Amino acid sequence: MVLKLYGLPTSPCTTRVLACLHEKGLNYEFVPVNLLDGEQKKPAFLEKNNFDLIFSFTLQPFGKVPVLEDGDLTLFESRAITGYIAEKFNDTGFDLIRYGDYKEAALVRVWLEVEAQQYNPAIQPIVYQCIVMPRRGKPSDQKIIDESVEKLGKVLDVYEGRLEKSKYLAGDHFTLADLHHLSYTFNVMKTPYASLFTSRPYVKAWWEDISSRPAFVKVCENIK
Amino acid sequence: MVLKLYGLPTSPCTTRVLACLHEKGLNYEFVPVNLLDGEQKKPAFLEKNNFDLIFSFTLQPFGKVPVLEDGDLTLFESRAITGYIAEKFNDTGFDLIRYGDYKEAALVRVWLEVEAQQYNPAIQPIVYQCIVMPRRGKPSDQKIIDESVEKLGKVLDVYEGRLEKSKYLAGDHFTLADLHHLSYTFNVMKTPYASLFTSRPYVKAWWEDISSRPAFVKVCENIK
Repeated sequence: MVLKLYGLPTSPCTTRVLACLHEKGLNYEFVPVNLLDGEQKKPAFLEKNNFDLIFSFTLQPFGKVPVLEDGDLTLFESRAITGYIAEKFNDTGFDLIRYGDYKEAALVRVWLEVEAQQYNPAIQPIVYQCIVMPRRGKPSDQKIIDESVEKLGKVLDVYEGRLEKSKYLAGDHFTLADLHHLSYTFNVMKTPYASLFTSRPYVKAWWEDISSRPAFVKVCENIK
Repeated sequence: MVLKLYGLPTSPCTTRVLACLHEKGLNYEFVPVNLLDGEQKKPAFLEKNNFDLIFSFTLQPFGKVPVLEDGDLTLFESRAITGYIAEKFNDTGFDLIRYGDYKEAALVRVWLEVEAQQYNPAIQPIVYQCIVMPRRGKPSDQKIIDESVEKLGKVLDVYEGRLEKSKYLAGDHFTLADLHHLSYTFNVMKTPYASLFTSRPYVKAWWEDISSRPAFVKVCENIK
């Protein structure tokens, strides 16, 4: 049974899952969902989440794709999907969770949570204001951008210290913790705030390394 | 080697880890860190995170406790710590991650992420404005409270639909996904916004169930 991913190629959360699928070298069917047409709010799609209200969320600016189908199992939340893929297909492709070494795996957990709780809340508003709002023909809010840039700078100061000591966030190996940063950072690099990354030598080297991995390059080609 | 937890008993993130430790029936040493004294910013404590800047974060209103020491392994981020404990001590106490059933475990992952990405961003500002700010002798921001109450209401509408169909968030069993909700909800129940929970029958029944588990009752007694 081939994996089926419902998503929008330009959505960072969809891109996060695509990057994971490509790192694992898995076959999948991609089903584009047109968020602007509200396709993700139609009954046939809503049923995939087993309840009707999930798309009433307005907390995620890109809406609630992706959704993964694996046989009769339907999953949502991009970070849950990548964790599921990384663990279920541990023997396939790149080991993204340092399976079998509980200490390394524990550090992967820590940096996955740092991305989710510290990095994402700082970077997401920048992408939303600088890319999504103009795409919708709406003005961006410079105050939100400025506050988020300051927050992200402080987070990246910590990353700079960390990456001075280890090549990747969780240690010597590329893991899911690094991968989860790819999609939003890819977008910020297209904004005037790319210098947040390029001005910090260790962060810059890390970004150039992880963003040039063949799996992610392939995903980015499909976005274009 | 006994587990050592650095934290503040009144911090929801510390409480989250304590609830997990008690569900697993694990022995641990608790080391209180006085956030108001800035103890968590002193060098001896900072070294536990292996880098100096982690406590410059201002994104988490309660600061950056807890920290868990397990032998020579030092972990932070409460959700990473509970995930580590639940997996490493899978054979001890209550099975919080539905280990061994990959479908059930996948749904635990999904609802862990819903808590982290949808529930927490809505409930955290309410607790911060209604409880933390007054404790610090500062005025609370009613606009932030109102916006967050509206957000949380929408999230809880989804929970109501989910909990009408299954006793717990991830299915028929109490899991880490439910446990992660305990500490912030416990705080909101002390505010004028408890009706967000009590007005929704299935959410109310779920809350009464999970908050009356002996492990969490024990943790709450220690907070008093």
